[in-house]
Amino acid sequence: MSKQVKSLKEAIKLCDLTDEMTISFHHHLRNGDFVLNSVMQNISELGIKRLTVNASALFDCHSDIISHINYGTVSKICCNYMSQSIGRYISDGLMDTSVEFRTHGGRASDIDSGDTPIDIAFIAAPTSDNMGNCTGKYGKSACGSLGYAFPDAMNAKKVIIITDNLVPYPLSDWSISETYVDYVVEIDAIGDPAGIVSGTTKITRDPVGLLMAKTAASVIEHSGFLTDEFSFQTGAGGASLAASKFLKDIMLKHEIQGSFALGGITGHMVDMLNAGCFKTLLDVQCFDLKAVESIRSDDRHSEISATHYASAHSKSAVVESLDTVILGATEIDTQFNVNVHTDSNGYIMGGSGGHSDTAAGSKLAMVIAPLFRSRMPIIKDRVNCISTPGRDIDVLVTQAGIAVNPLRADLRTKLLDAGLTVVDINELKEIAEKITGKPAYITKQNKTVAKVIYRDGTVLDEIKQV
Amino acid sequence: MSKQVKSLKEAIKLCDLTDEMTISFHHHLRNGDFVLNSVMQNISELGIKRLTVNASALFDCHSDIISHINYGTVSKICCNYMSQSIGRYISDGLMDTSVEFRTHGGRASDIDSGDTPIDIAFIAAPTSDNMGNCTGKYGKSACGSLGYAFPDAMNAKKVIIITDNLVPYPLSDWSISETYVDYVVEIDAIGDPAGIVSGTTKITRDPVGLLMAKTAASVIEHSGFLTDEFSFQTGAGGASLAASKFLKDIMLKHEIQGSFALGGITGHMVDMLNAGCFKTLLDVQCFDLKAVESIRSDDRHSEISATHYASAHSKSAVVESLDTVILGATEIDTQFNVNVHTDSNGYIMGGSGGHSDTAAGSKLAMVIAPLFRSRMPIIKDRVNCISTPGRDIDVLVTQAGIAVNPLRADLRTKLLDAGLTVVDINELKEIAEKITGKPAYITKQNKTVAKVIYRDGTVLDEIKQV
Repeated sequence: MSKQVKSLKEAIKLCDLTDEMTISFHHHLRNGDFVLNSVMQNISELGIKRLTVNASALFDCHSDIISHINYGTVSKICCNYMSQSIGRYISDGLMDTSVEFRTHGGRASDIDSGDTPIDIAFIAAPTSDNMGNCTGKYGKSACGSLGYAFPDAMNAKKVIIITDNLVPYPLSDWSISETYVDYVVEIDAIGDPAGIVSGTTKITRDPVGLLMAKTAASVIEHSGFLTDEFSFQTGAGGASLAASKFLKDIMLKHEIQGSFALGGITGHMVDMLNAGCFKTLLDVQCFDLKAVESIRSDDRHSEISATHYASAHSKSAVVESLDTVILGATEIDTQFNVNVHTDSNGYIMGGSGGHSDTAAGSKLAMVIAPLFRSRMPIIKDRVNCISTPGRDIDVLVTQAGIAVNPLRADLRTKLLDAGLTVVDINELKEIAEKITGKPAYITKQNKTVAKVIYRDGTVLDEIKQV
Repeated sequence: MSKQVKSLKEAIKLCDLTDEMTISFHHHLRNGDFVLNSVMQNISELGIKRLTVNASALFDCHSDIISHINYGTVSKICCNYMSQSIGRYISDGLMDTSVEFRTHGGRASDIDSGDTPIDIAFIAAPTSDNMGNCTGKYGKSACGSLGYAFPDAMNAKKVIIITDNLVPYPLSDWSISETYVDYVVEIDAIGDPAGIVSGTTKITRDPVGLLMAKTAASVIEHSGFLTDEFSFQTGAGGASLAASKFLKDIMLKHEIQGSFALGGITGHMVDMLNAGCFKTLLDVQCFDLKAVESIRSDDRHSEISATHYASAHSKSAVVESLDTVILGATEIDTQFNVNVHTDSNGYIMGGSGGHSDTAAGSKLAMVIAPLFRSRMPIIKDRVNCISTPGRDIDVLVTQAGIAVNPLRADLRTKLLDAGLTVVDINELKEIAEKITGKPAYITKQNKTVAKVIYRDGTVLDEIKQV
């Protein structure tokens, strides 16, 4: 008994891939992933056309997909995040069919419900046995959690595991079990470890960033949530990490042990766990080697599936129990709508990921953003793209003060009582525009190049050709 | 956010239970379970009628179900095992609708596929948080693995967790996740620990049993499977345990470390793991406290779902990778068909459990049975009920010699070469009948009281009213 086949091409043939099917990928190998390109190259050689690629995220390393679109192998893309180098082509109108952007939770629920069926899921697994019990925790390409790959594995008609560390059956500490797997392929390397665990996981040294981070930590301190039931998510950006550093100091000073930290997990969150700031880490994606080592060896650090993390259609998801999340923004408007899909010129360079999932679920959704970047103001009358609706954002922290969503008068009172600088978001906008000038209106084409699909499946916005 | 409700009755009402629905239970609390009776009592008080009860197993402690059948609350039973005290009533023709017996793997695949849909699953969980992340590993009623409850949790329309150890959210080492759970109910006690981990887990001291056990170990030693890829399952019966004791001695003497032991796990298997006989234990059910302690603390000891264990319809299951299984029998016939459902008088007193799953999957399926019990011969011309088809049984070990299925001439040669006593099964039958006399023919009624459904969903046999 073995599901191992000799090559990726053989596995693809055995799965009867034909034109117009949907194939899927996960992004835990991040910008070090070799698997998506390798699979697409093999499919291209087989002459198969008009595929839908449903990838949890596309990074710069996946730019080969542009030639597969040009060649006709790929005719549609669904993803939760798309890096700038690919987004640029999409924004220029490369594709006839618009890209479907989902959230991490929305992608999971749409796959779980069958709304976006997958014919073949290609799962890069840093360790697997020959029946497909596999994990991201071990092996030379270890990436830690395989959280985003669970819905794919559990729902795709065919599942192919691609590994560079085949171990004897049975792998006892599996993440995805053999019950879902059709074929296993061993290749030399599924990724470049340097790219897998890269990412912006350094605390900012920029004075503006540090100022905002300190303010953010103060907001949390005085929000009423910083108790021994406190739960927290933050991204891997420099200012977010700095905020968690200041938060850690506050928690240690007041001897507060919160409940859990959630999300993409960095070494900084591991430090907070080990310092006693949290009891548990719930991890859908590891951002660095320290997180990988921790999820492998510390029972308090648990892998969760994308469904468990953020699905809007499962019976519950962890985001619904989340207190506080720190989020980024390329733009935010005076209605508190946030854009993380495009830059100020309207070019795609990101995606929601878990942004709108955590904003919707959490009790305190905080955006940290400077008033301007490269002389472009961040606060607009209307964002170029609504990634997360303003109703789900509670507070904006800038270097010039804190804007509280008018829906959260209670929070505004608390922050004022604590002596923090609370400013109307329109005032912050004016302050920035006095320095940068009012931004020019961007001319866009009529063609829709991407749809932003909210976590409940409804279309939140459309991104037009630039 | 909390899914906790005040009482079992409230949870049942919230799930909109109505007449003729199907409810399900798992049996990890074994003969110490309080939950099934408590749920049925509440349902009875609500006046709901004609329910199908789909329970992975029914023990003596569940005898209350007889009165719920009489009262009309329950009109149909599906299970994989039924103890004598309930079986007696069924065999006497208590129910209008015949019981559906499945295998552990068949139950899982029929639930997974939707062939036997469940309206409400009642899951007894020794530890849970208020969102339904739960496990059997911790708590005063700890039972270890919750393997058989996974298909129920993952597929039932509504899922209620019943626990006597509610812990703060999030329980980080969950078995079943909140994504599947609708309501959580805390009660004083879900079971009696003495009954939960009872079971026949003592090595036999009967000389006939010991002789058979020694022979069984010799058969495995000379079967060709006892290598460092060896995998093994055995039951918790006295002779099976003795066989594994002798097998352990052989493995240690020859310094053989096999691959994995599977199934319901006893402390004896834990001892073999710790002695280095196996690398891994894959555990769908813990039979004793030592197994519970091991699955809680030893990373080499992993919980598996019933689907992963034995489903015939998942993409693979561990039984398909199993080398050797030691099985019991109440009867075996000259075609090697095995009965584990009824006694020699035709009364229901058991069920397949994983019997026919492991027999089908393993390379060496061995039955250990004495020639007679209480002066009733075990080898028959035709078993009263086919629980496992003879084609899946490779060898029968008795105190008077070893009978090899004619389909396994290769094995017969190996055992003869090793100097073991190989005897035709018809001869063994004659030896027994010379001592006991030929058993009288049992008169049965026309009414079918139970159907034995094979792991692939086909009806293997029917059990008639006695």
